[in-house]
Amino acid sequence: MFDVFALYNRPDDVDLFNEHYASVHAPLTRKMPGLQEFVWGVAESDTDLHVVARMTFADEASADAGLGSPEGKAAVDDLANFADAGVTILRVPRH
Amino acid sequence: MFDVFALYNRPDDVDLFNEHYASVHAPLTRKMPGLQEFVWGVAESDTDLHVVARMTFADEASADAGLGSPEGKAAVDDLANFADAGVTILRVPRH
Repeated sequence: MFDVFALYNRPDDVDLFNEHYASVHAPLTRKMPGLQEFVWGVAESDTDLHVVARMTFADEASADAGLGSPEGKAAVDDLANFADAGVTILRVPRH
Repeated sequence: MFDVFALYNRPDDVDLFNEHYASVHAPLTRKMPGLQEFVWGVAESDTDLHVVARMTFADEASADAGLGSPEGKAAVDDLANFADAGVTILRVPRH
């Protein structure tokens, strides 16, 4: 299994971010081919990290294919609409 | 479901960290009562984050009980043995 994490920095307007994430970005993400599990949540944290999202694929090749697909590109393109505070992408093969 | 993430900063000695994590810290973590799933992996990333670990509990109360148990405290105490580069804990209720 291969996890791709997206760690979103805290935005200026949390409510606007959360609304966009739930109504636009999460549905776009779920369309990616090969996605086996998609889980996200708002962190209870005093750090600068706001949302943690996990996209789980069978393996690295499936992750590359999913993220590189038209649906994956649409999700990546959508980052410009709400993630201007920054996002860290981590690719993590499960131990 | 309630996820607790531990994001470990890249250590000076990656091999030493990985060996301790796999042979000591992961087994300690798995002993926590209420832990439903435990997944970790080494990030393929050019960021400062090295290992992502996820501890999944049924809910926040179970997470608090597990982390506050003797087994949970033993795992937390073990951080001093290998995580001196720093670790960020994120508590994330699933959306």
